[in-house]
Amino acid sequence: MRHTRRPSRQNDPSGLRRKVLDAAFNLFQARGYNGTSMQELMKATALSGGAMHHHFPSKQSLVLAVFKERVAPAVRETWIEPVRAAASLGAGVQAVFDTIIAGLEERETVSGCPLNNLALELSLADLESRQAAAGIFREWQEALSERVRDTRGGKELTKSARGDIAAFIVSSYSGAMTLAKAEQSAKPLRSAAQTLKRWLQSRELDK
Amino acid sequence: MRHTRRPSRQNDPSGLRRKVLDAAFNLFQARGYNGTSMQELMKATALSGGAMHHHFPSKQSLVLAVFKERVAPAVRETWIEPVRAAASLGAGVQAVFDTIIAGLEERETVSGCPLNNLALELSLADLESRQAAAGIFREWQEALSERVRDTRGGKELTKSARGDIAAFIVSSYSGAMTLAKAEQSAKPLRSAAQTLKRWLQSRELDK
Repeated sequence: MRHTRRPSRQNDPSGLRRKVLDAAFNLFQARGYNGTSMQELMKATALSGGAMHHHFPSKQSLVLAVFKERVAPAVRETWIEPVRAAASLGAGVQAVFDTIIAGLEERETVSGCPLNNLALELSLADLESRQAAAGIFREWQEALSERVRDTRGGKELTKSARGDIAAFIVSSYSGAMTLAKAEQSAKPLRSAAQTLKRWLQSRELDK
Repeated sequence: MRHTRRPSRQNDPSGLRRKVLDAAFNLFQARGYNGTSMQELMKATALSGGAMHHHFPSKQSLVLAVFKERVAPAVRETWIEPVRAAASLGAGVQAVFDTIIAGLEERETVSGCPLNNLALELSLADLESRQAAAGIFREWQEALSERVRDTRGGKELTKSARGDIAAFIVSSYSGAMTLAKAEQSAKPLRSAAQTLKRWLQSRELDK
């Protein structure tokens, strides 16, 4: 049986939903999923328990929506689209690192990659969160893998070998961001960008 | 002023302390720091609130002891000592990956690297935890950097360039472990081990 519940008095339901997702994305990023209570989210958004429950009946439903509607778009905007639009894989990867490093240097704190943060915190605790994280990691790696195929060194590689290159780019970036968060410094990302650049060149995977 | 407090009736205080540290290390690894309550820890160790408080007056003091007495030794045992004992950097890195991959394949779940897990969860929330994590990452990188110097390609590198190599090994491992946790599979680590091996060889950093 399906219930289609429509609250009779709600001015801007999709606006409220967006507001909750934005607040949850920011609070999860700053304090983690388990470090953020639904009470804090209600306070941050000035929503009643009933209104919150209407949009997100559980904290799990909220974090799944955050993965789908905030984390995945952030990975697309930060990584996938710039790499697709770049002249080459090498140029794309460098442009992404440059943008992220410039952003970190502008801000005071390094909050880390939202996908990595939530993936590490929730992969064991919640199957659906883990699957959501794994799906975004997959999409990210597939986009990189496609660009590997366009390079001199990449066009003769098997699909599996191209996937290894893509996974290595994602891994070295993710790990460098963890170091950057622990050191509260962009230095590990600058170092990783240089090393990745030279590695891609040496395997003719840069263009 | 220093107080040396000795509880008059405690059968095995250092044994109890170890028991709490072991339980905390395991629960933090399975559920995260914020996902584990002091009540759960008391239950897991059958300790009273008073006994727990005697050893660890706060949850922060407990996690700092976990960093120092469990996470740092784990990184030394898993990474630093095998890399120091190996015939070469390349052999050491491969041996570490082989051991970790074999361990993951034996167990049912991929819990991830305890240092990365706690570092990502706590680096923004607690300055002392962040410093503890950063210190362990530093020790790990320094040990790798020393072995970089022993290689054909590494002996002419500057200290800073050797540090970049060490940071890249730590980053690519850490990120691959995050992918492994999200996928609940050892595959990203096998892939990273292969790619790292070939990269170290290409720069004559393997031996």
